[in-house]
Amino acid sequence: MSDLSRLSLNQKTTNRWSLPEAIDGCVRAGLSSIGVWREPLAEIGLDTAKRLIDDAGLRVSSLCRGGFLTATDNSEFDAAIADNIEAIKEAAALGTTCLVMVVGGLPEGSRDLPGARARVSDGIARLAPVAGDHGVQLALEPMHPIFTADRGVLATLGEALDIAEQYPAEQVGVVVDSFHVWWDPQLESQVARAAGRISSFQVCDWITPLPADSLLSRGMMGDGHIDFRHHLDLVTAAGYTGDIEVEIFNADVWAADPDQVLATMKQRYLDVVVGV
Amino acid sequence: MSDLSRLSLNQKTTNRWSLPEAIDGCVRAGLSSIGVWREPLAEIGLDTAKRLIDDAGLRVSSLCRGGFLTATDNSEFDAAIADNIEAIKEAAALGTTCLVMVVGGLPEGSRDLPGARARVSDGIARLAPVAGDHGVQLALEPMHPIFTADRGVLATLGEALDIAEQYPAEQVGVVVDSFHVWWDPQLESQVARAAGRISSFQVCDWITPLPADSLLSRGMMGDGHIDFRHHLDLVTAAGYTGDIEVEIFNADVWAADPDQVLATMKQRYLDVVVGV
Repeated sequence: MSDLSRLSLNQKTTNRWSLPEAIDGCVRAGLSSIGVWREPLAEIGLDTAKRLIDDAGLRVSSLCRGGFLTATDNSEFDAAIADNIEAIKEAAALGTTCLVMVVGGLPEGSRDLPGARARVSDGIARLAPVAGDHGVQLALEPMHPIFTADRGVLATLGEALDIAEQYPAEQVGVVVDSFHVWWDPQLESQVARAAGRISSFQVCDWITPLPADSLLSRGMMGDGHIDFRHHLDLVTAAGYTGDIEVEIFNADVWAADPDQVLATMKQRYLDVVVGV
Repeated sequence: MSDLSRLSLNQKTTNRWSLPEAIDGCVRAGLSSIGVWREPLAEIGLDTAKRLIDDAGLRVSSLCRGGFLTATDNSEFDAAIADNIEAIKEAAALGTTCLVMVVGGLPEGSRDLPGARARVSDGIARLAPVAGDHGVQLALEPMHPIFTADRGVLATLGEALDIAEQYPAEQVGVVVDSFHVWWDPQLESQVARAAGRISSFQVCDWITPLPADSLLSRGMMGDGHIDFRHHLDLVTAAGYTGDIEVEIFNADVWAADPDQVLATMKQRYLDVVVGV
């Protein structure tokens, strides 16, 4: 059997599974790590989740997700900070250093993109030392510009690094998610620049025609246009040796038998991500 | 009546009109320029089009479009070069200096994005002197990363300028299209860098939720998230004084009465593009 030791299932890929079901599914598939989402975590509670994950012998590759730091209303912004501090504590309790940060889109009715980006920067300033105190790294996730308006105003790895580099690497890093960054003409130089700050490497494909619901537009590796092996070479050259997490938002993948999805995911991982 | 002298109708906004109908529509609406597409131009022929446009007293703000320079097959690539030379001649005959270049996506089955970008660069090298000989500027259009795979591998203004700056400004410029560039964290610095090379300033809005057909995802100015006045300030600071072209691909806009679309377009132009 080829080496699957770095392959991690991000829970979102098997969206209909509860966290206990996803843990069992990872064990059946011979995987050793899982990326956990906070909503299914809350359904069973942190202590139960921790016990199940430990009993299964799994690592937690990341916790998804903190962020949403663009509110203009002060009390909303403060509530977001408080929620992120909870997320930091959950990540620490689960034994992962990686808290994925989806920073949030433009507030309702706002067209002030530079202002939204400035608030993200302010929020990270408040959260970075808290993360450091808990041994957690805030993993800033630049998102594909298809999501700039409504999900994540950080659009490029360079922009995420501009913020991250203001803090010690153990406090603030970045996510390199192939889907979000594959189009970037500065990809090569910015991944190199990210050396020492890559919190997570995630993979899923850009498929065309784009599905009707843009949120569910991600495809299984190999079904689209991304050269994953090139991306793996880039993060490897930047010193990244951590987990490779598969996170797929896609209605067809979600409708399929989750065990079959894991089987396909393993094969594609071997064929087009780590394969030569 | 407020000043509409810089407002141009890109034909695509009234997609169901033939070129003669669009010319008449512009005259009824009191506009003084039009952005012409090659397909409707071919329907009536260059000489007829030129006569109708001149008789109407209109300027041609741009010809759309050249490009599609990413083919890996040599004969296909050569055919694209030949077609672009025809487009350059058509632009010159219509009296516009601006030939909009949609550079093309990844070839079928290819995942070699750097390779596709290199072919675009090779194609521009062959076309730039020809454009210069005809008094036409190749207007490289960076496209929103939603289109990197299937339409335009140039994703940022910075990347377009990296190519353009290898040539005299009168041969190669760039298009600043709000829809395509609004998300870019380097927008301000790259528009400033583009001073002297802005061939065209186009406007249409980024709307959410994104329509199901991503090709038709552009909205009327004011219906979405873009701060057009900020964009106008940026291109103005970079010395641009040319036409402001409205190019909207949207099923609802295309289904509406075109005269009504022009009326709305004029009002929105005054309210949210040049308005304070």
